[in-house]
Amino acid sequence: MITVLRLGHRVVRDQRLTTHVALTARAFGADGIVISGEKDEGIIRVIKRVCEEFGGNFDARFIESWRGFVKEWREKNRTGIIVHLTMYGVDIDDERCGEMLRKIKEGADVLVVVGGPKVEGQMYQIADYNIAAGNQPHSEVAALALFLDRAIERKKLKGKFENGRIRIISNPRGKTIVQNKTKDQTE
Amino acid sequence: MITVLRLGHRVVRDQRLTTHVALTARAFGADGIVISGEKDEGIIRVIKRVCEEFGGNFDARFIESWRGFVKEWREKNRTGIIVHLTMYGVDIDDERCGEMLRKIKEGADVLVVVGGPKVEGQMYQIADYNIAAGNQPHSEVAALALFLDRAIERKKLKGKFENGRIRIISNPRGKTIVQNKTKDQTE
Repeated sequence: MITVLRLGHRVVRDQRLTTHVALTARAFGADGIVISGEKDEGIIRVIKRVCEEFGGNFDARFIESWRGFVKEWREKNRTGIIVHLTMYGVDIDDERCGEMLRKIKEGADVLVVVGGPKVEGQMYQIADYNIAAGNQPHSEVAALALFLDRAIERKKLKGKFENGRIRIISNPRGKTIVQNKTKDQTE
Repeated sequence: MITVLRLGHRVVRDQRLTTHVALTARAFGADGIVISGEKDEGIIRVIKRVCEEFGGNFDARFIESWRGFVKEWREKNRTGIIVHLTMYGVDIDDERCGEMLRKIKEGADVLVVVGGPKVEGQMYQIADYNIAAGNQPHSEVAALALFLDRAIERKKLKGKFENGRIRIISNPRGKTIVQNKTKDQTE
């Protein structure tokens, strides 16, 4: 299981970015997201609607305390790996990340932490790995996409989104949207 | 030259996302971004400040009309490639993208178009390639990161950000920020 932890969500200000973090987590193969900070049920509704439409079993919820959640996660996943994505960390393509990526590909449970505005120093100590997608400032969405791309082979994602109402078929010149027949087609 | 065109920016609503698109473009190796939609000088200021601090020659500006810009770009870059990133397109890892990626690696000029809320149908026809980072809904930031990752080898980015005031050194356990000596160090 690969779970993303999004830290310090703020209602209104972070709504769209946190939604993009969650949808990127889903599309790039994570199994769920937990979000700390200000509760914002609108985000959960958006994610649930995407899952109903496009399939898959992606879990999204808010948590009370990231510290409590991380502690609990560690207890439940003794051999699991906690990865904190930060521009200060070791580049994902650095050879120091090779062993971690190998373990994930072999099935290790992972908690991927992506920051909000200010990440507390403790997070750098709690994480097993502090990982960067380059040491330039950019976006937690981009960092998450690159990390998941390196950790999960994209061709393995086929079959992860089977039970939705619709699906998109690659089209070099326009849009092809197909209704899946196995589900109620009322919209 | 790799230029990103961000379509249909809306002030307030898109401010942070467009900023993330621009910073991701810069960090993943594009040379500049042009933005259509509502003018928003705050974004340009943020990008300029990041360039001053972290180095590189990344250009960011608003344009009046995306159609006019694309037409002009095409005239100036006769052998250039226009790539439109969309969830409806052909997956970047599909073999149909191989030739395009090879041309980019060999130095072809590229205009990478990333959508705003509603992309006009014409864009799908104007583009040489409509490319997806998977056919699931997620984020233009993630799509751009993955596209640039496939188009530009990340190790080639070293040396692109040399003339800034500061730089970050990879640290497995905290933050290392170094002042560059070649620049005025007043902050």
